[in-house]
Amino acid sequence: MKALVLKEKNRLVVEDFAIDEKLSPSDVRIAIRNVGICGSDIHYYLHGRIGDFVVKEPLILGHEASGIVIETGAEVKNLKVGDRVCMEPGIPSFGSNMTLKGKYNLDPTVRFWATPPIHGCMRESVVHPASFTFKLPDNVSLEEGALVEPLAIGVYSASTATVQPGDIAIVFGAGTIGIVTALAALSSGCSKVIVCDIKQGKLDIIKKHFSKNIICVNTSKESLDTIIQDIAPEGVDIVFEATGNPAVIANIIKYIRPAGRAIMIGMPPAPAAYDVVAAQVKEVEIRHIFRYRNMYPRTINLIASGAMSVKPLITHSYNFSDVIEAFHFAASMPEDAIKIMITM
Amino acid sequence: MKALVLKEKNRLVVEDFAIDEKLSPSDVRIAIRNVGICGSDIHYYLHGRIGDFVVKEPLILGHEASGIVIETGAEVKNLKVGDRVCMEPGIPSFGSNMTLKGKYNLDPTVRFWATPPIHGCMRESVVHPASFTFKLPDNVSLEEGALVEPLAIGVYSASTATVQPGDIAIVFGAGTIGIVTALAALSSGCSKVIVCDIKQGKLDIIKKHFSKNIICVNTSKESLDTIIQDIAPEGVDIVFEATGNPAVIANIIKYIRPAGRAIMIGMPPAPAAYDVVAAQVKEVEIRHIFRYRNMYPRTINLIASGAMSVKPLITHSYNFSDVIEAFHFAASMPEDAIKIMITM
Amino acid sequence: MKALVLKEKNRLVVEDFAIDEKLSPSDVRIAIRNVGICGSDIHYYLHGRIGDFVVKEPLILGHEASGIVIETGAEVKNLKVGDRVCMEPGIPSFGSNMTLKGKYNLDPTVRFWATPPIHGCMRESVVHPASFTFKLPDNVSLEEGALVEPLAIGVYSASTATVQPGDIAIVFGAGTIGIVTALAALSSGCSKVIVCDIKQGKLDIIKKHFSKNIICVNTSKESLDTIIQDIAPEGVDIVFEATGNPAVIANIIKYIRPAGRAIMIGMPPAPAAYDVVAAQVKEVEIRHIFRYRNMYPRTINLIASGAMSVKPLITHSYNFSDVIEAFHFAASMPEDAIKIMITM
Amino acid sequence: MKALVLKEKNRLVVEDFAIDEKLSPSDVRIAIRNVGICGSDIHYYLHGRIGDFVVKEPLILGHEASGIVIETGAEVKNLKVGDRVCMEPGIPSFGSNMTLKGKYNLDPTVRFWATPPIHGCMRESVVHPASFTFKLPDNVSLEEGALVEPLAIGVYSASTATVQPGDIAIVFGAGTIGIVTALAALSSGCSKVIVCDIKQGKLDIIKKHFSKNIICVNTSKESLDTIIQDIAPEGVDIVFEATGNPAVIANIIKYIRPAGRAIMIGMPPAPAAYDVVAAQVKEVEIRHIFRYRNMYPRTINLIASGAMSVKPLITHSYNFSDVIEAFHFAASMPEDAIKIMITM
Repeated sequence: MKALVLKEKNRLVVEDFAIDEKLSPSDVRIAIRNVGICGSDIHYYLHGRIGDFVVKEPLILGHEASGIVIETGAEVKNLKVGDRVCMEPGIPSFGSNMTLKGKYNLDPTVRFWATPPIHGCMRESVVHPASFTFKLPDNVSLEEGALVEPLAIGVYSASTATVQPGDIAIVFGAGTIGIVTALAALSSGCSKVIVCDIKQGKLDIIKKHFSKNIICVNTSKESLDTIIQDIAPEGVDIVFEATGNPAVIANIIKYIRPAGRAIMIGMPPAPAAYDVVAAQVKEVEIRHIFRYRNMYPRTINLIASGAMSVKPLITHSYNFSDVIEAFHFAASMPEDAIKIMITM
Repeated sequence: MKALVLKEKNRLVVEDFAIDEKLSPSDVRIAIRNVGICGSDIHYYLHGRIGDFVVKEPLILGHEASGIVIETGAEVKNLKVGDRVCMEPGIPSFGSNMTLKGKYNLDPTVRFWATPPIHGCMRESVVHPASFTFKLPDNVSLEEGALVEPLAIGVYSASTATVQPGDIAIVFGAGTIGIVTALAALSSGCSKVIVCDIKQGKLDIIKKHFSKNIICVNTSKESLDTIIQDIAPEGVDIVFEATGNPAVIANIIKYIRPAGRAIMIGMPPAPAAYDVVAAQVKEVEIRHIFRYRNMYPRTINLIASGAMSVKPLITHSYNFSDVIEAFHFAASMPEDAIKIMITM
Repeated sequence: MKALVLKEKNRLVVEDFAIDEKLSPSDVRIAIRNVGICGSDIHYYLHGRIGDFVVKEPLILGHEASGIVIETGAEVKNLKVGDRVCMEPGIPSFGSNMTLKGKYNLDPTVRFWATPPIHGCMRESVVHPASFTFKLPDNVSLEEGALVEPLAIGVYSASTATVQPGDIAIVFGAGTIGIVTALAALSSGCSKVIVCDIKQGKLDIIKKHFSKNIICVNTSKESLDTIIQDIAPEGVDIVFEATGNPAVIANIIKYIRPAGRAIMIGMPPAPAAYDVVAAQVKEVEIRHIFRYRNMYPRTINLIASGAMSVKPLITHSYNFSDVIEAFHFAASMPEDAIKIMITM
Repeated sequence: MKALVLKEKNRLVVEDFAIDEKLSPSDVRIAIRNVGICGSDIHYYLHGRIGDFVVKEPLILGHEASGIVIETGAEVKNLKVGDRVCMEPGIPSFGSNMTLKGKYNLDPTVRFWATPPIHGCMRESVVHPASFTFKLPDNVSLEEGALVEPLAIGVYSASTATVQPGDIAIVFGAGTIGIVTALAALSSGCSKVIVCDIKQGKLDIIKKHFSKNIICVNTSKESLDTIIQDIAPEGVDIVFEATGNPAVIANIIKYIRPAGRAIMIGMPPAPAAYDVVAAQVKEVEIRHIFRYRNMYPRTINLIASGAMSVKPLITHSYNFSDVIEAFHFAASMPEDAIKIMITM
């Protein structure tokens, strides 16, 4: 079948690729319709690796996907041919210790699309477990369906933060993850979310498209301390750290109120330091997250209800015939882009 | 000072009433501006008692209030003369066991406005602890300030329910408490709230004024089972019980999904039965709430952000000169009324 | 293979029974060594059913078991031939909604030993998933291994109760489940556990064999109210309800302190009533449990460390050759018996 | 009255010291009987300061105390003259934000004994709020009563760790805080606690006096990695960090199992780094604690029940007449000392 294949670092082709996928009784086969380009796709494209995951064999990219069910296994009850669906891209071992504890995202044997050596989904069809395939309501489009994956990270961040109604939060980082986290935090009960970045273009796009309860702060020009003193003089309830920047991490504790919490989403390249004693005097909790789990139905509910307005996230669209051009554009890291969406 | 005094059951007068309130260093004096009429005010008026709380001496009614600070104690730092404020009406003993555990609403010595023998606030001014007096933001009116008290019950219900983003809830009962609970549940992360009642007038007022994500069900005409089967076939995440009706309580478990929870707000007149085994097979948690605690700042935040649109709650307004007429009207239990608001 | 087969109500035989069990790559085959007799085994024997579970075909009984691994599937890494093990008897569907949430005990498709039509383990050998088979430490005997199943219920009850260090609890019911709950509660941080029953024989056996921090109360002779007034005048932190008796359930709230919790273990035959308003004034949480999940390793740890002294639980032992006599004895409901253990 | 006064750094005297303490209606007056010497007392003695807390005026030392009630305020109901008691040394502002949330230890205005400018309790008597004064059961001695303060830190650590029954923990640091944390962790449900230090004398004293379920590891001689591989190959459930050593903090994540937690008790002198990505992949929670709150009754319960055997903690005893010698001895940091106890 036709697929977008990363042959090796910097060499991306659309080609016929032989994949023989058998349908087990609990699987469905899905014709792919939309796939969003993720930062990790670009990173594999440009660097051929992420940490220990190295592209040694040609790899199909893409993991943010929606599609149409075209075949169902004998035991599948929750889906039928023709259903519009989105798919959770990481499949754990079902009998593993962490899966049985409900924390399947922490199972070290998870097979995640477009993470070597597991192929991604920028191709004509995939076979996928029915229990990781979710029907879209009528008022959620296939393009929105392909956004569920990145949105699930935001919803999981907000869920991990145990947002209490009326909380005030800071999100450090106005990239895609920062934005989806801000949207999810608001829809989870935050009354205000302050998003900080130094790229004005990113902040402008938020101001233009999203809720007035997201307050944008360009920390290269404005004093966050002054703003916090005004909005939350005792500190905010929650900090979401989505930059992975050690200089940011070094300062998060001071913005948090006593008994508040920090959610660590960004991945710093080396161990990062923080003020332990300041965290003790306030009894801050620092929680760490890895991808997400059990978030797809919740995320779909919030899109369907309008609690998260997600269409503005798709800033650029390409047909699959232009997918390589789309990757070139994405690789230029344009400040006015949030999500680049491919239609198969 | 002028006050609304319940002399005895069924005898309500506006009269000059001598109250000598000293201002301690941690208190403020507040000129009252708005007071909402609560069901408990009406109940004392009509019956002269609520359970063990009996009106033996003339009692000033009212506990849902806002006002303007007119004097501050020597140690007060968070407020100044002229501040627009609302007041939390129940003051615990500060050194009590439950207060030190942060559960001051459970302190049996709480002194709560308009609960015999503690006078309420339908009068010219009150002296109140600064720590139970909350400044209103500029975009929150004094009328909205007087709504914070009933809204706090809703926010506390939602908070106790530990709403997860995307949850679906049922609220049984479309009275004021049912409505504020539905509003708070939506603003806390619920994607949909189903409100059930048998009074069509109550449901119509919700449909007219509030979010489309509140689904109204008249259980005397429609089958809730069928609706749940469609919206949440495994059951809802949360049931908020706000009727106190034993026949309703007897049936809540069946609507709850495995590992869901029930929040008991309505107060049945006698012990109520439920299906323990059904609750076991699903491991339902049944949580009970009593008033609220630490909810005023959160509630004010949600009003200020627009997350809860509360102005439609005030369906009828009266000046204090007509307060007795307002009580007569309220006592007639009109179906199209939510909150009747007095301006002092 | 030789097995204990319930042919129909009241007809129990030891006979050769043909079971053809294939070993999948993730399974192990285990030679059974010890099996405890559970109340449910006796109930099926005497009544031929428990609720909707009806013995329609001959059924092998037994689900509290230990044994020796005699064969391992190709993918099994955590176990090897010769390992001494105990087995968790309920196997969920691995891709089910509740399993992926970590609550596999709530999966309605769980296949549980000796629950019709699933055969139990009173036979020569079983094939079982390796992920539900747990190696015993050297200092835990095979007899103790067969106790892990009932003990897991106690540990799960204590875990669900979120025991805080120094808590005081009441356990209603001094049967096997009441005793294992009391043991688990003490080993989980309770400083004192009051066990209530009306059968003096049950209480005497506790007094004789277990910790002095278990206080036995015969509620047919002694006033629990007086005892609680002395030990915990504000009420206990936790009530474990292990009788299923509606008359007991009707009274549990009054013994619980404000912000305390009740754990419902016993299964009443019909809906049961409680004082909702009393529960509200104290904000009691009522939690319900169904079997257990993820408790085997924890339970084994607590036996191995000596935190739970479990040998006295085995009050009577029989060889498999005398298993029918053992069932006759168990069916007589002797007050001095806790666990009757069969050696295969 | 006679008191132990730190006149300035390195100058400690026993002298008559005029303190005029009035008894408010909610206070009690207590004749002091036992006071333990804490590391902070020694630190003030040797350095004249701890962080921003500087000894500018003569300061009475001591905050770990027990005594006998000799006078009660008019409103005091829970205590009477002659009661044997211990006292919680930090008194918050009762109407503060954090106190009303039940987190009074985080109130920045807490007045804590022997923290400049608040005098400590090594004197003949003190006046103290009845709500921070706790009656000792008959089987708890006054010496044990003076141990409740340091033990409360351990119990609070274990409580903050939400120990689950059967958990395995590591405590880094075998000083007094490390030991009380290990004792509390065991009594809260841990099946095993591994205590690490490089001072063999500290470890020997643990081995000699406490439970065999505390495993001592001298990390200067033994490989903790090897030991963990054997005891808890997936990592331990909880790490308690009680050294404040940045080199230790840098390595704690690797010992924690997925979904485990770290409790930060030791206070490093500067920001400390940790492996954020490793914490993310395992979703570790890092919790920070500051002193304790609401722990005295729980701690007393655990001493009274025998769940924590605390007498061996008192390794050295002195009469108040020899208190300066006791301080000299304590200042020499003897490895075989845990707690040095003064009898007034």
